[in-house]
Order: sequence, then structure tokens, then C-alpha cells
Amino acid sequence: MQRRTFIKRAGLGIASAAVIGAPAVQAQTTLRWRMATSYSTSLLAHHTAAEKFTKLVSEMSGGKFTISLHHAGELMPAFGVLDGVQNGTVECCFTAPYYFVGKDETFALGSGIPFGLNSRQMTAWMFRGNGLKLMREFYKKYNIINFPMGNTGTQMGGWFRKEIETLDDIKGLKIRIPGLAGEVFQRLGAVPQQIPGSDIYTSLEKGTIDAAEWVGPLDDMKLGLNKVAPHYYYPGWWEGSAQVDLFVNTSAFEQLPDEYKAIIEAASAVGHITMQSVYDAENPDALKQLVAGGAKLHRFSKPIMDASFKESMGLFDDISAKNQNWKKVYDDFKKFRADQNLWFKFAEGSFDQYMHTQKL
Amino acid sequence: MQRRTFIKRAGLGIASAAVIGAPAVQAQTTLRWRMATSYSTSLLAHHTAAEKFTKLVSEMSGGKFTISLHHAGELMPAFGVLDGVQNGTVECCFTAPYYFVGKDETFALGSGIPFGLNSRQMTAWMFRGNGLKLMREFYKKYNIINFPMGNTGTQMGGWFRKEIETLDDIKGLKIRIPGLAGEVFQRLGAVPQQIPGSDIYTSLEKGTIDAAEWVGPLDDMKLGLNKVAPHYYYPGWWEGSAQVDLFVNTSAFEQLPDEYKAIIEAASAVGHITMQSVYDAENPDALKQLVAGGAKLHRFSKPIMDASFKESMGLFDDISAKNQNWKKVYDDFKKFRADQNLWFKFAEGSFDQYMHTQKL
Repeated sequence: MQRRTFIKRAGLGIASAAVIGAPAVQAQTTLRWRMATSYSTSLLAHHTAAEKFTKLVSEMSGGKFTISLHHAGELMPAFGVLDGVQNGTVECCFTAPYYFVGKDETFALGSGIPFGLNSRQMTAWMFRGNGLKLMREFYKKYNIINFPMGNTGTQMGGWFRKEIETLDDIKGLKIRIPGLAGEVFQRLGAVPQQIPGSDIYTSLEKGTIDAAEWVGPLDDMKLGLNKVAPHYYYPGWWEGSAQVDLFVNTSAFEQLPDEYKAIIEAASAVGHITMQSVYDAENPDALKQLVAGGAKLHRFSKPIMDASFKESMGLFDDISAKNQNWKKVYDDFKKFRADQNLWFKFAEGSFDQYMHTQKL
Repeated sequence: MQRRTFIKRAGLGIASAAVIGAPAVQAQTTLRWRMATSYSTSLLAHHTAAEKFTKLVSEMSGGKFTISLHHAGELMPAFGVLDGVQNGTVECCFTAPYYFVGKDETFALGSGIPFGLNSRQMTAWMFRGNGLKLMREFYKKYNIINFPMGNTGTQMGGWFRKEIETLDDIKGLKIRIPGLAGEVFQRLGAVPQQIPGSDIYTSLEKGTIDAAEWVGPLDDMKLGLNKVAPHYYYPGWWEGSAQVDLFVNTSAFEQLPDEYKAIIEAASAVGHITMQSVYDAENPDALKQLVAGGAKLHRFSKPIMDASFKESMGLFDDISAKNQNWKKVYDDFKKFRADQNLWFKFAEGSFDQYMHTQKL
């Protein structure tokens, strides 16, 4: 209730941004923005990144530029945040671009696609390759400028009631999986389902669905899926990494004084590091707890990986043939991915593999 | 010359910091700092990170807080920067903590040790684990507060005139390799050498040394070592990652207004992302060029990896027995490393391995 009162008082975000205007070098005017997110506090890594971002913006501006944080449902629904930023209801939002593949498949390239880049490679594509430039060109159509603000790392492949070994085991499988990965599963003969996270447990318990993917140990643990679908597969080949972004309304951003523009850039980068670090640091204990609670770890079989890879590449070719926005970004992404894996298989890959087999 | 004139004018960094003092909330006073680095512009990733950091500090403060960048030799020698910050000659420096293992082995834990953490794990230990807290406690003795400001990722194992397959091939090997890794090579019967990067080419050409490690493709390419020692080994097990830091004089930092403290924190984090991204994005092309120029890639044999691992763990136990500073940090590092590899071998490891074997 207190929070809602505050929102009312702070509701003139964009209007007050206009007061400041571009010429104001010293950025003295108090400015309040609102950030809607697609998440709740239960997603610890997301929440921690969002809080760190808003805290730093306030600190760096000496409390003059503040951004209030509003989780899913508070101002608008989880998936309404893109529209909210586009039409200026809020100045910015924190979300995963691939939620919006229904508008245009190109959004997926800003988060992650099946057999895409891992977290470090995605960050390199954004911060040093052409990723950020190309995605910003695309987001312009939505009146948005984006800033990478987190990544999950490689996700797990999710929870299955029964073991799956062959492609036959996938035929007819009712699996909760959204987006492009759902389309790949469909090509493999599965029946992808779109259900909210809160309904996964019950659906698996009742057998309405046979499998469900969520994120990885830290978040999965909270859903308790190990109790109803103990077979925990890896890797989540559809999310070698999943980037989340700060989406800022372009007009609101352009009206910011230069200091505040730089502050947004730097604070979101800290959020970017924060989210991946929370996942990396917290996942090991969560995994141990899940295994102690009955989760059985399985690696996806090679036939399943190979068929999924082939169908994914086929899907991307099909999208390239009909969507020029996608094609423009994907062509660059594809070249970058090939180069990254050429290099990573030597020093990075062999070091990691060696460490994974040692008693430490 | 212009730069040197500027330095003279900017020389009163710490004195002017004192003028501002803690109570100044609005940070109106102009403040100039100097940052000495252990590098030259030829290390592209380091230089890019340092420039991004100083640029952002200036932008976020509306040009009121500026930090001038001075590469190795300009104000002080490459390895004199720690003393320079400790005694307040400069307010901050950009360096690799492990250069200073001669003062205390604990410095190495702030960069990277043989068979240590990879880049993402190191970042997670710093930003979410106990890494930053523990290293800051240690650096207090040197009147320093640190901020992670880059990583190289896993380095290559360096350049060898002849192939090495067995442990016998290492006996008597004269290899240019500094720090703790040099001690491990010594335990294996090699003769580690400490020579500056600029002398490596000639020493290899003349046969004064048999092998030399530097960084990875991007930086190695500039030395042209493929022409004189074509066998290029991986992984650089002694640098699964190597973090570089911004070291700030504690008194100078404490005198900053809160806005500027937050600005230092956020700008250095952007530097942290920038440096790893430059390496990741630029290494593939450099590797291709090196191979086209005659470099022959070899993976270190299992006997060599296993013996190196064993000697490294032995070395760390020996240091733990005599250095309480090291022991306190290493005990935490070791537990974190075990947990990280337990988790990374599942989703991350299997995803990466699969991608490394695909035609992309």
C-alpha cells in the first residue's frame, strides 16, 4: 500500500524528464522514473540485479535521479512491460527480450536461441561485437533503447516424469516450454505447452504434462519439481544463455542529461554482472539440495541433441527466409557463434574439462 | 609532451580530494586523479578497459571528476604502481595483483592461480562469493581498496621450440614464466626464467630459452612468436583466468563524496566487462592468423597436466602452512572452486562441449 502511494506521487516520470532537457549539464533537477519488471522477488538473481541497478543510479546521482522498482502485476502484467515502455506508461522495464517472439522472432536474438551463445560469448557479442548495435537498430521500431542487464548462464533441460533416451520418447511428450524452443520440440513430435510457472507443479503432479523446463537449480528448487518429476536433464540446449535487458523508452532516454545517460549505462552493466554472479554462486548449493531431495541427473542423449540441433538450424533457416529483421541480426550472430566456438574449444574448453574431472 | 604538461597541472590529486571531504553531498568540486597502469597501449584489451573506465567516470560526474591515464613508465615503472598507490603518489592504478606475489603470495588469489577459477567463476567469487571481501581485508595492509576491472579468460600455454609430450621433456626446459606457475615448473624440473615481454622473441630465436608464455592469441600475435617457437600449447593451466584490478588509495577513496565512490564502483565494473569482451571477441581472428602463420596447436598431454596439478596443490599446501594471509583466503577460494566445478560440469560444460563439436 505504501508502495502504491509512492507510485502516485512519482507518476510524472517522463514529464519531469522533459523539464531537465538536454542542455542541463549539471543535472540538478530531481528526476523520478519507474521500472516495471516481468518478475517477482522469488527470482533471486533477477531481483538482486534490479535492486543493485536502482540503488546505484540513486547513489551516483546523489539521490537526484531515482528509479522505483515495480515487479510483475504491480503496474502491469509480466508480459505487458514492453508495451508499457513503448507507449511511455513507464520509462523503463526489466525483462527478457525473447518473451516477445510473438511480435517478431528477432527479439529472441537479444536473449538467447537454441544452440546459441553461452553467457560470456553473448556478453562479448553485445559489448564488443555487433550485438548491441544490431539489436538497438531493431528495438528502435518499438521506441526502445536496450542495455544488457543480466544473464542466467546455461540453463538446465528441465524436469521429466519418465526418462527419455530416444527420439521416440519425445513423440507426443507434453512439455511445458515456450518460444522458439517450443517450436523445435514440435518439430521433434512433442506437444509444447505454455503454462505459467505457478501452475507447473500441479500440472506435473496430475500428469496433465509430462515434462517442464524452468531455469536452473536456484530457481527450480523453489518450485519443488523434483518431487513430481525427478528426472532432471541437462543441458538446456535451448538456453545456452539467456540475457535479460533494461528496456528504456527512447524519448525518455534522449531527454536525459549526459551524466544520467552514462549512469544508466554503467549501473545496468553492474546489474549484468550481478545477475550472472548470483546464479553462478548460488546454483551449486541448490543443485546439491535438489539431488539430496531425489532429483536424478541425466545428460540428454546424443541422438536427442543431434536431432534438436538439426531441427533448430532448420527453424532458423525458415525464419531467415521470411523475416528480414531476423536475417540481418542472425547472419552476424551466426558468424560470431562459429568464431567463438572455434576459439573456446581450445584454452577455455580444455581447462574447464580438466577441472571438471579433478578431485578439488 | 602535451600529456606530461597535463600531468604537472593535475598533480595535486589527493590534496584536492581533501578539499571536497566527506560531507559534500553534491560533489560540485572539480577533482582530478591520476591512474598509473602496468601496461602499454599495445595490450588492446587492457587499454580499452582503462579508457572506458576513465571516460565513464568523467561522463557520469559531468566532467567534474576526471582521472588521467598513465601507462607503464610514464609516471613510474610497470611494477612500481602498487607502491605508487600505497604511498599516495597516485590515487589509483590498474594492474594485475599477482605481479606482487614477491610481497605476499596472497596477491595471486586476487588474479588467478594454477588450476584456479575460470573467468566467470572468478567474477562470481568476487561479486557474490567472499572473494572481494576477503581480498579487501588483505589489501588494507597496503592502504588499498580494490575493484575488479577485467579478466583475460583462460590463457594459452605458450610457445615451445620443440614439442613436449612427457615429463622428461620438461626436465631442464628453460621457460619464460613468472610467479607461482614458475614455482610449479621448477618442481617439475624446468628452469623458469623471468624476462620482460619485449625480450621474449630474441631469446626464443637465439635459443637462450626453450619456451615462453605470454597471454593468448590477441596479444601473442603482436610478439610474432609463431615464427621462432611454432608449438602453441593449451590450456594455460596456470591462468584459467587472470583478473586485473583497479587499486585505489584507501585515504583518497574515503575522502570521496558518496556519488564518486559509487561512480568508481560502477565504472570499474564496466571496465571489467569490457576487457573480457575484447579478448573474447578478438581472440578468434588472432588465432586464425597465428595458425595461418605457422603456429601448431597442441593440447598439453594428460601426464603433464596431472603432474602440474599435483605439484600445484602441493605448492598451495606448503604456502598455507607458512602464510596465514594466504590460508585465510585460499580456504574460501578452494571451497568455492570445488562447488563451481561440481555445478559447471553439468549444464555449462555439456553445452559448451556439444557446441565445440558442431559445424556452425
